[in-house]
Amino acid sequence: MEGGAMNVEPQTAELDCLAGVRIVDLSQYEAGPSCTETLAWLGAEVVKIERPGRGEPARYGYARVPDKDSWYFCQFNANKKSVTLDLKSERGIAILKALLKNADVFIENLAPGAIERLGLGYDVVRAINPRLVYAQIKGFGEGNRYEDFLAYDPIAQAMGGIMSVTGERNGPPVKPGPGLGDTGTGMLMAISILGALYRAKNTGRGQRLQVAMQDACMSYIRLAWAHTLHTGEACGRHGAKTVVGNVVPQGAFRCKGDGPNDYIIMYCHPGVPEQFQRLLAVIGREDLLGDPRYATQAARAEREPEVNAMITAWTMQHTKLEAMEILGAAKVPVGAVLDTKDLYADPDFERRGLMQAVEHPTLGRFKMVGWPVRHDGKMARIRPAPLVGENTDEVFTAWLDMSDDEIERLRKDGVV
Amino acid sequence: MEGGAMNVEPQTAELDCLAGVRIVDLSQYEAGPSCTETLAWLGAEVVKIERPGRGEPARYGYARVPDKDSWYFCQFNANKKSVTLDLKSERGIAILKALLKNADVFIENLAPGAIERLGLGYDVVRAINPRLVYAQIKGFGEGNRYEDFLAYDPIAQAMGGIMSVTGERNGPPVKPGPGLGDTGTGMLMAISILGALYRAKNTGRGQRLQVAMQDACMSYIRLAWAHTLHTGEACGRHGAKTVVGNVVPQGAFRCKGDGPNDYIIMYCHPGVPEQFQRLLAVIGREDLLGDPRYATQAARAEREPEVNAMITAWTMQHTKLEAMEILGAAKVPVGAVLDTKDLYADPDFERRGLMQAVEHPTLGRFKMVGWPVRHDGKMARIRPAPLVGENTDEVFTAWLDMSDDEIERLRKDGVV
Repeated sequence: MEGGAMNVEPQTAELDCLAGVRIVDLSQYEAGPSCTETLAWLGAEVVKIERPGRGEPARYGYARVPDKDSWYFCQFNANKKSVTLDLKSERGIAILKALLKNADVFIENLAPGAIERLGLGYDVVRAINPRLVYAQIKGFGEGNRYEDFLAYDPIAQAMGGIMSVTGERNGPPVKPGPGLGDTGTGMLMAISILGALYRAKNTGRGQRLQVAMQDACMSYIRLAWAHTLHTGEACGRHGAKTVVGNVVPQGAFRCKGDGPNDYIIMYCHPGVPEQFQRLLAVIGREDLLGDPRYATQAARAEREPEVNAMITAWTMQHTKLEAMEILGAAKVPVGAVLDTKDLYADPDFERRGLMQAVEHPTLGRFKMVGWPVRHDGKMARIRPAPLVGENTDEVFTAWLDMSDDEIERLRKDGVV
Repeated sequence: MEGGAMNVEPQTAELDCLAGVRIVDLSQYEAGPSCTETLAWLGAEVVKIERPGRGEPARYGYARVPDKDSWYFCQFNANKKSVTLDLKSERGIAILKALLKNADVFIENLAPGAIERLGLGYDVVRAINPRLVYAQIKGFGEGNRYEDFLAYDPIAQAMGGIMSVTGERNGPPVKPGPGLGDTGTGMLMAISILGALYRAKNTGRGQRLQVAMQDACMSYIRLAWAHTLHTGEACGRHGAKTVVGNVVPQGAFRCKGDGPNDYIIMYCHPGVPEQFQRLLAVIGREDLLGDPRYATQAARAEREPEVNAMITAWTMQHTKLEAMEILGAAKVPVGAVLDTKDLYADPDFERRGLMQAVEHPTLGRFKMVGWPVRHDGKMARIRPAPLVGENTDEVFTAWLDMSDDEIERLRKDGVV
């Protein structure tokens, strides 16, 4: 099957896992929005509450074309609805409370104390709707000595141990490209929300959920904890290698070309000695098969520079794609270092439905990566992020049975 | 409230979100086990199916004390049960099928084609139990040209774009310490499993779920996609800075001390100019307040080395903890780069229930990080990973109503 629009559609579907689940989303930027976007992909109705006028600050944040929503915003708000509400007005708060009465989930990631100052603390909201799942994302945990400090993704990654295990061996700490403090936390909160929703189906009662970005980061480095438990020492940095730095050969091997990503990554599993033997065969060093200097993991670890030089002599004769295809076909575990331009251009992802083209009203047509888990063979169909306030009328009518006149009045008074 | 055993207990509870949910877990190493450990923390009964004798290979993998289970294994298998079964025997397969008939979820992350060779492909299992959620984790997506290639975490991180956006600006690609290809994928599969379980409550029907580690990695770099959509170029590497590399000041600042992690990370949000003004006040450069050379994000970006030198002159006079506490209290967004030894030793995490001490039968007492989301104020209580086959009798009796004699016979015949 070759690529093309005709073949894309059957790979996608509107997932119905969370059909009927209503989510009121007061979150912004990334940690909260990544969470609710996921729930929207699974079929929940996610209603973003935004300031009248400009809306959520991420709309006019990073990677923005003047007067249009940012590309950043579009990545984290697909498949949602947008409603505007002035939460500084009493009527705005009253409408939000009415929405919460009709919702299954509420989520916020405002600065510490902000939700209570709005009069929407947990005790208030629980009284309005006892079956509501009330979810909060903060930088640091309740009771943590830094609870009131400001936290963004890089800070959570530093404080949660991630940066201490990322970077070159003798270099400074590096921040992973992925926003583990943000999206990483959002994914964990999505799990707990789903758990609490499942529970609510049995019990009829909601839960309060709280996660700290620092704590979430700490939960993503379990291999590093294993190292510290084993050695009593801090886990270090190992460049392109795993925190199990002593497996040889592994890591980045330069290939033909002078681009920043002209590398393959190799990881010869210590539990599968055949992988290294296959590698020797591919690179034309069958003469070393069975040689005790290279036969075991421990032996190779003692001559890592020599082993790596031998491999690089071969990889430098091939582009990263050639090297990967030859070695991969021989069942040596390797991957090319692909960048976002390589991946964006590869029609295979669109053909399989992981990437889908969406038509945004102001940004036009572009492709984005959606929910990567296939349900009964289908990827969740992506709808572009809403314009600010795009769904105010629709939601107020459907959820609150509000008349057009009432909505018009709210609009005139600047409440929406 | 100070630390100490008396104060730990009330922070934890057995979560009951998934009470009554039964999971048959044929996964190994990390991607699958991280997923099912999460579901166990939420209250599911997770039964690991292992080879009689030595059990899952991760038991004798990385960070192992001779003749004991590895620290690695313990990180990913808390709160589970272990059952042994010889899947090369007909009776072993028959028992597994009987377990699947009684289960809500099945998960495997074996090599491509292996589950079908065991006679447990989706069509077979669906016929046994149509309400079962059947979850599979592979390296590459079905229909991907590299579908049959071997894939471990670093390879997925390379092929999924993550390594291309991690590392120093002019350096080679770096692998983030966290196993995004493994645990990152496991978390996404946990979300889809929970979605499918929720759906099954409404419909009585299960689903087949499939995720590729490469695809999961691609979904974790949405900020990098935003960059590529905005510029048309591949997103690059930015060391300790975010992929939004042009925000100034941000990144790692050296502090007093000569340890590899004696740094603070700073991120002055471009949308909140006050943060930079507060920073100037703390470092004693009020003279620059209002100076147009530093007043805006764009102005500072033109003199980043100078701005960074000014900040470093101050940070070098303080330890990372001092620098963080002074700046953080002044509402400048900073975090110290904490390593796994720092964090392990900090009693605050145990006091709050994120880290809990467990008593393992052979490894003794140690602390581990559990599920970071608090449910109604409680962290999920951690139980140590089971010994191999520890729960065979219990599960066969409870799930299959097997007699002691029958189990004894299976044991004698080497089936369990």
